[in-house]
Amino acid sequence: MRTKVLLSTLLLLLFAVTYSQSTDSIFLKSMSADVMNNAKAYDNLRFICKKIGPRLSGSPQAQQAVEATMQMLKDAGADTVYLQPLLVPHWVRGAKEIGFIQMANGNKKQLNLCALGNAVGTGKKGILAPVIEINNFTELDVLGEAGIKGKIIFFNFPMDPAFIETFNAYGASAAYRTRGPSKASKYGAIGVMVRSLASNPDDFPHTGVTIYNDSFPKIPAVAISTNDAIWLSKQLKLKMQVKAYLQTNCKMLPDAPSFNVVGELRGKEFPQEIISVGGHLDSWDLAEGAHDDGAGIVQSIEVIRAIKATGVQPKRTIRAVMFMNEENGGRGAQKYLELAIVNKEQHVFGLESDAGGFSPRGFGIDVKDELFEKVLQWKSLFLPYGVYSITKGGGGADIGPLKTIGAAVAGLRPDSQRYFDIHHAATDVFESVSRRELHLGAFNMAALVYLVDKYGL
Amino acid sequence: MRTKVLLSTLLLLLFAVTYSQSTDSIFLKSMSADVMNNAKAYDNLRFICKKIGPRLSGSPQAQQAVEATMQMLKDAGADTVYLQPLLVPHWVRGAKEIGFIQMANGNKKQLNLCALGNAVGTGKKGILAPVIEINNFTELDVLGEAGIKGKIIFFNFPMDPAFIETFNAYGASAAYRTRGPSKASKYGAIGVMVRSLASNPDDFPHTGVTIYNDSFPKIPAVAISTNDAIWLSKQLKLKMQVKAYLQTNCKMLPDAPSFNVVGELRGKEFPQEIISVGGHLDSWDLAEGAHDDGAGIVQSIEVIRAIKATGVQPKRTIRAVMFMNEENGGRGAQKYLELAIVNKEQHVFGLESDAGGFSPRGFGIDVKDELFEKVLQWKSLFLPYGVYSITKGGGGADIGPLKTIGAAVAGLRPDSQRYFDIHHAATDVFESVSRRELHLGAFNMAALVYLVDKYGL
Repeated sequence: MRTKVLLSTLLLLLFAVTYSQSTDSIFLKSMSADVMNNAKAYDNLRFICKKIGPRLSGSPQAQQAVEATMQMLKDAGADTVYLQPLLVPHWVRGAKEIGFIQMANGNKKQLNLCALGNAVGTGKKGILAPVIEINNFTELDVLGEAGIKGKIIFFNFPMDPAFIETFNAYGASAAYRTRGPSKASKYGAIGVMVRSLASNPDDFPHTGVTIYNDSFPKIPAVAISTNDAIWLSKQLKLKMQVKAYLQTNCKMLPDAPSFNVVGELRGKEFPQEIISVGGHLDSWDLAEGAHDDGAGIVQSIEVIRAIKATGVQPKRTIRAVMFMNEENGGRGAQKYLELAIVNKEQHVFGLESDAGGFSPRGFGIDVKDELFEKVLQWKSLFLPYGVYSITKGGGGADIGPLKTIGAAVAGLRPDSQRYFDIHHAATDVFESVSRRELHLGAFNMAALVYLVDKYGL
Repeated sequence: MRTKVLLSTLLLLLFAVTYSQSTDSIFLKSMSADVMNNAKAYDNLRFICKKIGPRLSGSPQAQQAVEATMQMLKDAGADTVYLQPLLVPHWVRGAKEIGFIQMANGNKKQLNLCALGNAVGTGKKGILAPVIEINNFTELDVLGEAGIKGKIIFFNFPMDPAFIETFNAYGASAAYRTRGPSKASKYGAIGVMVRSLASNPDDFPHTGVTIYNDSFPKIPAVAISTNDAIWLSKQLKLKMQVKAYLQTNCKMLPDAPSFNVVGELRGKEFPQEIISVGGHLDSWDLAEGAHDDGAGIVQSIEVIRAIKATGVQPKRTIRAVMFMNEENGGRGAQKYLELAIVNKEQHVFGLESDAGGFSPRGFGIDVKDELFEKVLQWKSLFLPYGVYSITKGGGGADIGPLKTIGAAVAGLRPDSQRYFDIHHAATDVFESVSRRELHLGAFNMAALVYLVDKYGL
């Protein structure tokens, strides 16, 4: 008897799971057709890229992006749209950098370079010093003060093409940009040149933040293009005595007022339970920040539009959050978390899109094991839309901190092959984004938000 | 006892499978690192696109591509490189097409248009006639001769954005381009304009072959850009009386001599068993044919280089085949099959890459059920390299015919979101190809060829 009851229960459960999967599958098909036909993400991205452009924290363009996305959230159908005031670091690049290599015979080669974000400038006179190539931090320690003092250090650590997931290659190289300048300063270096973090040889400097260690003097730091790095390394291997001249005009101004932008669809059953979906509003100043992170912004707004368009009011409150200052401070993420704590908000789930507007392949999710199993059960629902990989670990710089107050956090994982061609460089423009790829990513985000809203997490 | 023996056998089998999978996995990891670091595909593609350019069958550029790829195959390490002579249709576009819409008030709007491949020209005088919009073939039949005679038919059937796999949308629309002109001619139409087969609104005409039915007069046929189609449809819906003027200067010349190019790595154990991997050498004349199908060509050459670079001589004979004339005749595929039959060759497997040089997602394989199961067992080996989908049905226009002589046939399935932005249009240029995406596709092709060679199929 007991076996029979168990069997019936199992069959019933199986039926229920199958039935709900099939209902969800039909619902998502209809939502995907709507998004692929009617999404506004691409048009919104065009506006952000072409009418506003580069929008580094503290810039007038960053403020324009605040205002524009407020309007976009209203147009998408958000019930409430509001701002979270905050202060952001206000770094400015100043006049275009100058840099060249001076050979022993007096010949000069101009460099494609740019100051690293948050770096100090050289002053108008610039700096001129012999160049030492360093391929890893151990080499730096071995040379020590005797070899480093008074020099310009050239960190030449390429992204390894053999990493199929390019973010892993980035992870292995990024420390030379973020920590290299202070590590060199510790031994008395007067400046740093970092090989750009790019997947392929190109002529563009790729900027990005550097993080000074306050124990050592802050020294000027630039990124040079990968092609220049390859050339320079070749000269040095030929035992050429070369000097570098660098002139950078960047500086840090006092903190500036700015905002996160939030748009909500209020939940019907559990309005106190909050699902956040977001990207960052600021971008580096060298390009339009189309993939980084215009894409994440317009996709998050699209989640609101797409869910509103289904006509089904969500059970939980769904928020699209445009975080300010991801690139050189993380103040927006900090403020969002701080307000969540102060207001005793109940954050159940957060989803970030900050890996480019490329064709979606998966989600990384940071959630308790038993809930991860629950998410895995939805995997087949995503497969028709190109998402096949649901792995542990996720979130991102802006959404990730919500984990500390109990939220499950996730990140969209688009195809990463092209990301480091455009990352933090002049090539990150609207034209590098595919309309269908952007919209397909937005749909998958909306689908995950829909399922989390429906079934909880 | 028997259970024990069975268990031991099973365990042994499991061990063997696990062991070989792990050996293969290590082998493929090393091969992928080699390809992602040392592949020549991208450089070869640059040459084909920038030094040769458009290479329609019968053109001098097609012949240059024959010669260039012979050299590339030799450089890749092929043991033997040879040509298969054949005759190809020799269609030429002639002077740039002219076309405009003439409104009832006399205003004119120029159209972005191009003649369809293999179409007849209008003659110098051109044709001028009222335009009728047709949204499907049923509408055409309903209007019949009374409604169609003397008119220019405008087939306006958009690719449906809701198809996530864009080739499915293409499949649903392509008949208006291939069969539309003769279907309209049957009712006395004097010309045809087809809405370009493009995923997104743009200003480029996308050409492609039209196939006349010899029972009806051959009438001129053009593709107009999607933006022009949208505009024109709007005019017609406002009951505007509009006429179209078309002047096209294309014509079919007598068949021209040409070649397939073949490069082989001879097998060590079963040299008579042939594995073919290929793409097509010809391209449309409007662009560089970077994705269609320069990518397939250079990837196939890369398979030879990558396998040669492992230092392991294949068991079976591996051939890279550059097929001529896929776009407007299929004569290369026909000749390759014909010679295979005449020479009593034993073809075990064929793999085609003709869906663009985008990030790989899967393979479609046409093979007997029990062998399909065998291929499915390799799936986990591909997962680290972005290939997660192995489905039934595959091959392609060039490799597919080998099925008739018993070969298993397969096609690489790259991400399809961007393909119909560039397909058969001026946008199909080298700059639209990502180096890493191209090379990752080539690696997965080499991996499949390696596994089929090692384990048979």
